[in-house]
Amino acid sequence: MTQAQAKVNKAPAKTAITPTRAENFPEWYQGVIKAADLSENSPVRGCMVIKPYGYALWENIQRALDDKIKAVGVQNAYFPLLIPLSFISREAEHIDGFAKECAVVTHHRLEKGPKGNLIPSPDAELEEPFIIRPTSETIIGDSMAKWIQSYRDLPLLLNQWANVMRWEMRPRMFLRTTEFLWQEGHNAFATKQEAIDDMMKMLHVYNDVYENYLAIGGIMGEKTSDERFPGADNSITIEAMMQDGKALQACTSHNLGQHFAKSFNIQYQGTDGQMHTCHTTSWGFSTRSVGGLIMSHADDDGMVMPPKIAPHQVSIIPIVKDDGAAVIAHCQKLAARLKEKGIRVHLDASDARSSDKMWSAIKKGVPLRVEIGQREMDEGNLTHIRRDLGRDSKTTVGENEFIGTVQAVLDAMQADMLKRSRDFTRGNIHEMKTLADVDAFFKGDGVGFCKVDTNLTMNDPEGFKKLKSEHAISHRCMPFEDEGRKVLLGKSY
Amino acid sequence: MTQAQAKVNKAPAKTAITPTRAENFPEWYQGVIKAADLSENSPVRGCMVIKPYGYALWENIQRALDDKIKAVGVQNAYFPLLIPLSFISREAEHIDGFAKECAVVTHHRLEKGPKGNLIPSPDAELEEPFIIRPTSETIIGDSMAKWIQSYRDLPLLLNQWANVMRWEMRPRMFLRTTEFLWQEGHNAFATKQEAIDDMMKMLHVYNDVYENYLAIGGIMGEKTSDERFPGADNSITIEAMMQDGKALQACTSHNLGQHFAKSFNIQYQGTDGQMHTCHTTSWGFSTRSVGGLIMSHADDDGMVMPPKIAPHQVSIIPIVKDDGAAVIAHCQKLAARLKEKGIRVHLDASDARSSDKMWSAIKKGVPLRVEIGQREMDEGNLTHIRRDLGRDSKTTVGENEFIGTVQAVLDAMQADMLKRSRDFTRGNIHEMKTLADVDAFFKGDGVGFCKVDTNLTMNDPEGFKKLKSEHAISHRCMPFEDEGRKVLLGKSY
Repeated sequence: MTQAQAKVNKAPAKTAITPTRAENFPEWYQGVIKAADLSENSPVRGCMVIKPYGYALWENIQRALDDKIKAVGVQNAYFPLLIPLSFISREAEHIDGFAKECAVVTHHRLEKGPKGNLIPSPDAELEEPFIIRPTSETIIGDSMAKWIQSYRDLPLLLNQWANVMRWEMRPRMFLRTTEFLWQEGHNAFATKQEAIDDMMKMLHVYNDVYENYLAIGGIMGEKTSDERFPGADNSITIEAMMQDGKALQACTSHNLGQHFAKSFNIQYQGTDGQMHTCHTTSWGFSTRSVGGLIMSHADDDGMVMPPKIAPHQVSIIPIVKDDGAAVIAHCQKLAARLKEKGIRVHLDASDARSSDKMWSAIKKGVPLRVEIGQREMDEGNLTHIRRDLGRDSKTTVGENEFIGTVQAVLDAMQADMLKRSRDFTRGNIHEMKTLADVDAFFKGDGVGFCKVDTNLTMNDPEGFKKLKSEHAISHRCMPFEDEGRKVLLGKSY
Repeated sequence: MTQAQAKVNKAPAKTAITPTRAENFPEWYQGVIKAADLSENSPVRGCMVIKPYGYALWENIQRALDDKIKAVGVQNAYFPLLIPLSFISREAEHIDGFAKECAVVTHHRLEKGPKGNLIPSPDAELEEPFIIRPTSETIIGDSMAKWIQSYRDLPLLLNQWANVMRWEMRPRMFLRTTEFLWQEGHNAFATKQEAIDDMMKMLHVYNDVYENYLAIGGIMGEKTSDERFPGADNSITIEAMMQDGKALQACTSHNLGQHFAKSFNIQYQGTDGQMHTCHTTSWGFSTRSVGGLIMSHADDDGMVMPPKIAPHQVSIIPIVKDDGAAVIAHCQKLAARLKEKGIRVHLDASDARSSDKMWSAIKKGVPLRVEIGQREMDEGNLTHIRRDLGRDSKTTVGENEFIGTVQAVLDAMQADMLKRSRDFTRGNIHEMKTLADVDAFFKGDGVGFCKVDTNLTMNDPEGFKKLKSEHAISHRCMPFEDEGRKVLLGKSY
């Protein structure tokens, strides 16, 4: 038992999740995942199992993002899971950044060993080992080189939904897992400017999804050189502020310049008849976003789902004691009416106690809870409660009125969640004049990011290095809104 | 150059694909994939790259199947890519069937080797190697054991969309690749009968997708014991007949009995308060289906896509010479009108020659080709041609009339394709009385399946074994319609 748990166990818990955010944020995070039934650790160290409710959430995020990616003309495709070692050796910076911690496939067959157990067959050792893709710039670059012949083939806009693997020594569910799910986009262009514009365009696609689906108002900006993707000319990012004030790098978009294009011979014949090297970008968004969602919106009673991506938007809870058949039948009709209106509705017709059903919906973060008992049914009424506002939002209305307004209630909750996220983030960015101020801020357990002149850390690399190691902070990004003159400093996940 | 190619090269080709089906079916198959731009070999032996047009096709199949899987109450989830060696050792028959040819992960880090190249780091050898999942019964079984406590948790219905890997020595695109994409369903039940019913239900879900989306009318039946999934009590299948008369095992559904449940302790507490072992099923459908689609429907001019899953249902080809701006603008308006009606439309506004555009649409198998030149435009007309019927179906109609009837034209094509597939399959099943008849049939290059009394091969194992090795035939299935009394024999992919 941890200290926080011990403390909580003394006094009766008033919240569904113990410890609370204030008591122990990292343990609270694990508690929410468990209570909401999103995922769990697997027997493969560092890899998680995404449970049905968590996967339904990911599918909703995925669908929203996929539609937007396709809307800007990008095509999905699929490339091999395995990458030949020689491929990752080709781009020098890329090796340094990625090649270290990865799963290496060395054999292609098993056989019975001397003790009767299975062992990799010594006869089936691969001449050249493969790694499981940590990212696919190299293997997609190899295809791009074949697919691009002339300027007519450009731009080439590709996306892949895939699992990738980076061996993690300190895994945390969703945030940092050895295997994770993501999309990785890889685009090729004739000119430098098009690549820069594309990098920016795709980050705005991400921001659209973050703001309008995940209700997270992060800060878009450029990475400083020390935080760039290995092999990129520029990396841009959305840095989202979690409720503990730490940053989550929510997604990134990179202008790879001509580095990969040169290493993989991605060339085109121009209108001038000459061969030219392409400019490429890459951009990724992963299941990490679910971690960001939890740390942005969940509270001490569990998950809070933004309505647009919630697996269940409405949970109907029949309040029944002995024979609840009539109330349940009534609730089924209501569920059917809501479904017809395109609402994702869940009817909890299990034989659990009403209060357990209620708490289950709360912990799972269902945006709108609808309670119907015998009396409500007889009166044609129902009671609904917004997850983010709790019992203060308890409203009893006629069923027909509810059907007419339910979408508006969900939309209002979605908008309120974004506003809270934006306000919290903006409210916890502290402009500072000196590195000493930054030092004092983090010494005093300040919550949020510090914003300083970019040249402050750039001109005093030794001073910044000291700050960095002392407080485990880093350059998060140079916000676009400050046009590169300012940089955000913060702790991060 | 192969013989078939040499022969074709002498006479000018009259078909877009050389060799033709009659000349060399396996080479024709590769030719169609190339001409339709569906996939290509990758630098990783045995693994393919699924190109955007091929992937769009897979996404349409996937969407149709996913909707139906969800409609019967199955939930999607995600389990680790890697499987501990100890897991696959637990179910004895399963090892024999699967463990042999698979990718083995032995290290989790790379380092610079003595020659400066990257090598698996000797310090980072895994204590227990992992295999990349060839299928996930074992690792999902491990989770099921945790998730199922009482009868209230049953049935547990899970599905996973994933990549899997089985090392292939003789890979063929889509049909047999080292890495492939699929869904694998894994359900758990309290009783034997429920598992048997579920196995059957999921095969019917597949058959619905095969018939009504892929327009393939295969034969549903039970596998004989020699063809069962390793570790199953029963396996059932859809065997689809390809245009060369060979069978493709199009998908399978298994009743795993209590084998995996016992190995992984998947138990529930019954209403009687006692612990009972569950009964499980598994069922899979993969990118192999795309291979079946090609070999069922494509012709000597390339792919023929069933309208319901075609990436482009209608291809609009402006027939223009010099300044085609007005015709192209007109076609854009038509494309917008079709899109509004929910038709997946592709406008080929490239600067390629009209005949090249036409051939591109033919090779890619676009169901309906629409041609519009200056005269058609002036008259408010257009000409359309069905891919499966060719120029005989050429029809000139008014644009408004076309908008009103296009869905019906596509539906008719979809229905005709299914009818042809069914008729071909049923027309090439030959009932026979003796194994000598079967021998004579395959000696004479007979096309299709032989149907014999089940006891004919069962009671003469030696005779059947000889036939099997001589003609490379096998038990395909015992069709449901014959209630186990008959078995189909055929060559297969």
